[in-house]
Amino acid sequence: MNLGPGKEFDRIRGILTQLAEISGDADELGDDCALIPLGSTTVAVSIDNSLENVHFRTDWLDFKEIGFRAAGSALSDLAADGAKPIGVLVSLGVPTTQSKAGADPAAAIMAGVATMVHNLGARVLGGDLTRADQYMVDVCVIGTVERPVRRSGAREGDAVWVTGYLGGAALALERLREGKPLSSVLRNRYACPEPRIEAGSWLANHGASSMIDISDGLAADAQHLAAASEVGIEINLEHVPCWEEVAAMAALASGEEFELLCTMPPTFSDSSASTFRSQTGLQLSRIGTCLRGAGGRRGGVRLLDHNQPVALPAGYDHFA
Amino acid sequence: MNLGPGKEFDRIRGILTQLAEISGDADELGDDCALIPLGSTTVAVSIDNSLENVHFRTDWLDFKEIGFRAAGSALSDLAADGAKPIGVLVSLGVPTTQSKAGADPAAAIMAGVATMVHNLGARVLGGDLTRADQYMVDVCVIGTVERPVRRSGAREGDAVWVTGYLGGAALALERLREGKPLSSVLRNRYACPEPRIEAGSWLANHGASSMIDISDGLAADAQHLAAASEVGIEINLEHVPCWEEVAAMAALASGEEFELLCTMPPTFSDSSASTFRSQTGLQLSRIGTCLRGAGGRRGGVRLLDHNQPVALPAGYDHFA
Repeated sequence: MNLGPGKEFDRIRGILTQLAEISGDADELGDDCALIPLGSTTVAVSIDNSLENVHFRTDWLDFKEIGFRAAGSALSDLAADGAKPIGVLVSLGVPTTQSKAGADPAAAIMAGVATMVHNLGARVLGGDLTRADQYMVDVCVIGTVERPVRRSGAREGDAVWVTGYLGGAALALERLREGKPLSSVLRNRYACPEPRIEAGSWLANHGASSMIDISDGLAADAQHLAAASEVGIEINLEHVPCWEEVAAMAALASGEEFELLCTMPPTFSDSSASTFRSQTGLQLSRIGTCLRGAGGRRGGVRLLDHNQPVALPAGYDHFA
Repeated sequence: MNLGPGKEFDRIRGILTQLAEISGDADELGDDCALIPLGSTTVAVSIDNSLENVHFRTDWLDFKEIGFRAAGSALSDLAADGAKPIGVLVSLGVPTTQSKAGADPAAAIMAGVATMVHNLGARVLGGDLTRADQYMVDVCVIGTVERPVRRSGAREGDAVWVTGYLGGAALALERLREGKPLSSVLRNRYACPEPRIEAGSWLANHGASSMIDISDGLAADAQHLAAASEVGIEINLEHVPCWEEVAAMAALASGEEFELLCTMPPTFSDSSASTFRSQTGLQLSRIGTCLRGAGGRRGGVRLLDHNQPVALPAGYDHFA
């Protein structure tokens, strides 16, 4: 498999090389979900960890929101493959220091997780509970998919589309870091991300050739698509749908948006996009085009601002 | 569902109560695996976290062994339900402080995980990598099972059986804590636990009425079986198969043994046990009997030493 640039991905590439030596099949790794054909269906599974002081802070979110956010983030990987959830397994790490009497943070976190999955017609299947130095909510999602969409199917001539409006997650994070007030809508964008399950399934069923959820930032995730599909991707900055008060470059760099970035064949028209909007209630914007493969890891994505080339913002890298 | 006594299990009971309020289906939670009927088969999934300074220490095990042990421990949950593994998802937490140049601990841990799953005919399906304060290896296992065995099926008159010899894990841990030398066999018992996949499958196919893997200690895990099945369990101390140099009471309390504790119907004979031994190469010992339900959480297990009642040792409790 091919990943975009970055120290985190270099490290993952090192791991994949080692796995390939042992089992000889690491090529399939690195998509949002692993896909397991089973009888007449395909099982999609993924794991996504949320760690205190890396992914969240306990003075920004209450414990139920921490569970809600962790589950939403994990379920977003199913959306990215066009899959629907059956349920989740949750590994909780909780410090032994007790909070206020009567309120077990572990139970509050799980209430958030359960509410999120219940809203999507899925359920909590099981879990593990361990004492730890940091709060940790590691969520494994299990779903099924009829027509899985990988990162690797984009072809020259496909258009690049994105759901929703970008930049709210980074803006909320900035306000929280600076201790500034934020509207409830903006707060929810950060605290309660909605995995785009219905949208992902709709796009998969309408011919999406490749798809990914925006967790590292649109620019970085477009690089993952370009690398996996071995195409070039040209993004028109002025077409990127931005959250109110957010500039396009900031929207491109904003991670943990959990919107979907996908490529659709040329037959997918503006009228198809209108149907998507009316059926899902979500925005869908055409932001670019797939070009002939540019080759090389960094060469995959080109950014244009009213036809003028501009430099790409960096994505979030855990090990930068 | 019913769990044995202990603060950890009280906490889990609190979580389950909350989940039941949200989704109304928490009754199924609490077994070793979650079971998902899918077409003509059943998917078995479980998650099991291994944390630095809780489950392992980096001065006791090298990174490959840490991966080996984490995967073995997680796969043991599949064995406990009679399931066979398809693969694992692994969430790694690694401190940013680098070790010796060239050796990425994350890659070494994953090499251990991959070796373990490869030996069982399964594979690494995917994962997540995050910087963390402690090393963390959270393993989600996915398998299939034709005839799942739960904790809840034990009936009055069933005999209680256990695989292997118990107490080696605790003895190894004690030697490591005291900085004493230990034989390679004893070291392997701790560092490289072998999940009893073949044994679990064999027992499931030969009528096991309930089964659990020994992670909290035989005494504590027998309490889980008794509580879930609503039976009493009488254990004959003198029949407990002990690791060399380990006393029976210590063997009963030893956690993370990853042997299987099961109940078999009266039709399962000594000759059936001989067949098990010759086909799996493992010991199988009859250590007790299921009685009419004693009622109450603590009343589930009774221990006899040559027909004299003795007190039960406590199991491992993360939050005691």
